[in-house]
Amino acid sequence: MSELKVQALYDFTGEPGSSELTIETGEILTVTRKDVGEGWWEGINKDGKTGLFPEAYVQEIKVPSNQPPAIPPPPLPEGNDWGNTQTEEFQNYESVDFWDDEWDDDSEGGGPPYPHPPNTTHSAGPGGNYPQDKYSENSGAGKDNKGTVGKKNLNRFSTFVKSSGESYILGTVKLNVTEADKVYVIGTEDSISWKPIQQPYLCLVASPKKETKLKGLKSFIAYQLTPTFNNIQVSRRYKHFDWLHLRLEEKFSLIPIPPLPDKQFSGRYEEQFIEHRKNQLQAFVDSICRHPVLSTCKVWEHFITCTDGKRWKPGKRKAEKDELVGANYFLALETPETPINLLKVEQENESCGKFVHEMDIAVKNLMATSLDQTKKHQGPYKREYQKIGQAFYSLGQAFSIEDAASGTVDKNLTSAIKKTGSTYNEIGQLFDEQPKLDWEPLGDTLHIFKGILASFPDILQVQKGVIQKRRDCEKLTFDNKMEASQLQEVRRRTDVVSYALLAEINHFHSERNTQFKKAMKSFLKEQMVFYQKIVDMLGVSLAEFGDD
Amino acid sequence: MSELKVQALYDFTGEPGSSELTIETGEILTVTRKDVGEGWWEGINKDGKTGLFPEAYVQEIKVPSNQPPAIPPPPLPEGNDWGNTQTEEFQNYESVDFWDDEWDDDSEGGGPPYPHPPNTTHSAGPGGNYPQDKYSENSGAGKDNKGTVGKKNLNRFSTFVKSSGESYILGTVKLNVTEADKVYVIGTEDSISWKPIQQPYLCLVASPKKETKLKGLKSFIAYQLTPTFNNIQVSRRYKHFDWLHLRLEEKFSLIPIPPLPDKQFSGRYEEQFIEHRKNQLQAFVDSICRHPVLSTCKVWEHFITCTDGKRWKPGKRKAEKDELVGANYFLALETPETPINLLKVEQENESCGKFVHEMDIAVKNLMATSLDQTKKHQGPYKREYQKIGQAFYSLGQAFSIEDAASGTVDKNLTSAIKKTGSTYNEIGQLFDEQPKLDWEPLGDTLHIFKGILASFPDILQVQKGVIQKRRDCEKLTFDNKMEASQLQEVRRRTDVVSYALLAEINHFHSERNTQFKKAMKSFLKEQMVFYQKIVDMLGVSLAEFGDD
Repeated sequence: MSELKVQALYDFTGEPGSSELTIETGEILTVTRKDVGEGWWEGINKDGKTGLFPEAYVQEIKVPSNQPPAIPPPPLPEGNDWGNTQTEEFQNYESVDFWDDEWDDDSEGGGPPYPHPPNTTHSAGPGGNYPQDKYSENSGAGKDNKGTVGKKNLNRFSTFVKSSGESYILGTVKLNVTEADKVYVIGTEDSISWKPIQQPYLCLVASPKKETKLKGLKSFIAYQLTPTFNNIQVSRRYKHFDWLHLRLEEKFSLIPIPPLPDKQFSGRYEEQFIEHRKNQLQAFVDSICRHPVLSTCKVWEHFITCTDGKRWKPGKRKAEKDELVGANYFLALETPETPINLLKVEQENESCGKFVHEMDIAVKNLMATSLDQTKKHQGPYKREYQKIGQAFYSLGQAFSIEDAASGTVDKNLTSAIKKTGSTYNEIGQLFDEQPKLDWEPLGDTLHIFKGILASFPDILQVQKGVIQKRRDCEKLTFDNKMEASQLQEVRRRTDVVSYALLAEINHFHSERNTQFKKAMKSFLKEQMVFYQKIVDMLGVSLAEFGDD
Repeated sequence: MSELKVQALYDFTGEPGSSELTIETGEILTVTRKDVGEGWWEGINKDGKTGLFPEAYVQEIKVPSNQPPAIPPPPLPEGNDWGNTQTEEFQNYESVDFWDDEWDDDSEGGGPPYPHPPNTTHSAGPGGNYPQDKYSENSGAGKDNKGTVGKKNLNRFSTFVKSSGESYILGTVKLNVTEADKVYVIGTEDSISWKPIQQPYLCLVASPKKETKLKGLKSFIAYQLTPTFNNIQVSRRYKHFDWLHLRLEEKFSLIPIPPLPDKQFSGRYEEQFIEHRKNQLQAFVDSICRHPVLSTCKVWEHFITCTDGKRWKPGKRKAEKDELVGANYFLALETPETPINLLKVEQENESCGKFVHEMDIAVKNLMATSLDQTKKHQGPYKREYQKIGQAFYSLGQAFSIEDAASGTVDKNLTSAIKKTGSTYNEIGQLFDEQPKLDWEPLGDTLHIFKGILASFPDILQVQKGVIQKRRDCEKLTFDNKMEASQLQEVRRRTDVVSYALLAEINHFHSERNTQFKKAMKSFLKEQMVFYQKIVDMLGVSLAEFGDD
């Protein structure tokens, strides 16, 4: 694993007594964690001291250098606000159970922790790596640091190979597949898709609430899920979502699982954070519900319907023992019989890979912009408008001195100027509150796609591997080392994988189309409402000055 | 004169080959000029090197200190833009005649330079101090650096005393005052005013153009003035305005003369600068035209009506030889005979002083905000919106890869996303262009009032001196050293000054009322138009995504 080195672009003074690390412009740091959340990274400085620093204050470096960068500093969020926010959030740090809560042993059961597939970096302890991060963590050869998907990663594929990929292609695995397990791919080569959802439904994530257990010793947030098909509410904690996510990733080697919200390092019980996480979980749930395969799979069904504590554990165990995972899952696929044009599939794979790479860069860039704008709205923009407000208000204050002293002047003007001051102050407040209506929801959509895009290179690699295996078999048959009939079977099974991949690629493009359309429209509408509010507020202010 | 020391808050790297001075955070500089303009100051560093640096990068210090300031840096304008703008502007620096043009000998006449009243700091050479600056320059005891008006300044008053103030009060000066010279104050103690303008008129400042003389060797900007009462255009250069301003200041010891635009150090031939100076001169001219006394005085009349080069010089000489200046001017005042309540006048003087002090602080604060917002609109805000635009556009670009590769996706979405990108880019451009419609005109009004406010302490001091003289005379009479009839004359003449001051204070409040009302309304209207434009542009973008 290659170390990620960064260089500090600006000075940052860590809050004393917090986990923050004081860094100096030009200083080189080794990043130890990028999944801290909320714009923070963890790293070690040259003195071996570990701590958190704002990601935006550093830049990745190729060769360590002590030269300060030549670029001018961008407008920074003012130190005070950073400080204050962090201080507030870190006040909760010691007082509530922390990683523990998310990752403690499952109190509903007493059994051993669920098994992990070999060779994955899923780690369930404090400070463990997060599924989304394994790709970047394991990539030694990544040249492009703009996006993670450009980096080759063989994890999913090697798991697939080591488990049962080869056996599936060679037809040596036999598993019992019930009708309920079967998944259908339909259509012809030009329009291949998963069999559409027969009974579309939604699942509402609502009313996150703080619950306690062990007589109040432990507290956690529970999210209420209500599927529309039965209208029965179930209560799930983040760790349940996390367990579900691992199951889905394990089971579906060709389907990118939408990501969960990033693990957040601080402010977990803050109202705004909880509300936002609820929205992020809703986006995750929606994405699953829209997927023809994921929305109907058993582990998901168990997750959104099981209300009974006693039924939960067996269902959980059953999911963990599911044999139709990884390559074995292909046994459950029912696809058209028509052989697929291999060259065309390879072309699709190639073009999908290129697209995913470009989209990944664009999505990350837009996410960074979204995060940056959110911070700027809540920090500098807000302050700027409030500074304007203060300047007008002070003028009004000065005018009111004369109002008090004489009767000759227009008191209405004084109050109108003060009102203008208050208006700009309120506009500042509006800026503060705006991001949760536009940038944050857009960021949530982007987050889902960022996760999906990150899974794609692996998925494409799985198919490439399958095709390679088929070529190997074709050579064996040419060399008379494999029966023609057996090769026929290999070809058929390769096509099954290709059908599934093409169905998934098409689902991805369809999702991309509808979800980005929706997100962009909603973003623009909210932006319009926002600026319209400003116009209206200014109009009210203007009216105070009278008509003449 | 006490030296102004400042400490650098940020690093600033001077453009090589320009007049800019490279400064380091914490460095102490001695300011040599504050009238450079456009946010620049000139100073000397510890190595004796002189150069320009941005005013916003330093803070005034009381005691030299090598400790860097503890406050966090505010969002800075990015270095690049500063650099670029300045480079462009400084390119003109050597190529055009510079101070020379504004201050060269008057080619219309061959006579000696016009005389300066003794004891004023008016200086007509390069680097000379500007009228507006004399107050701060001469104040050694000023404690309050927020506003200049709080600092006592005896210049105007001492000129007044040394010239003929005492003679006027004691009635020892006799000058012939024609009916045309007379100026009337009307009303009773409760509503004293200058006799209103009989025939109100405007004077349009238009079409500034570059003219040359000496067969093109010298070039300068000429502003065209057209009074509405005769509709005959005259051409005036900045130096003519400057000459006029000196005459008005000299003549009217009780009337604050609206200030001319600040002398600008660079970019004098830049289109935008010339357009802005035209607006500022218009504000100056308007302010004169609205004043019952100034709008009818002879030197002003000469200035706005003289078209004949041969008539210009005699009129100019006549104005310079005018004897009804300073305290002598009071001989021309015709006021009601009713004696004024001295205590009430003193109270008015006091309360006006306090008000002027507060308003001065508020006006300067708002001017700083206006300048700051202008810079931010043209720099960081513009860039922020263009960054957003770029992020959306890149996403559109990524999407178009897939559009090219397949027919299954919505090409309309791709173009709509790109369009959103362009829209935000255009909004960035809108931010750049906006200040000249809202902040700049507001700043122009503020500039006029800043100059007027700066003159008030002197004017109030003139009257205080007059009252003191009257008290002296009252004591002399009490001691039988002055005739009662002579004291009666002294009292009458004191009242004349008080009547004029009260008329001017009332004019000031009336101006403040109407002009701020107008400026605020216009500012708010333009702000509304601006944000409405953004709403409309976003609406067009939104429509691209279709209705479904």
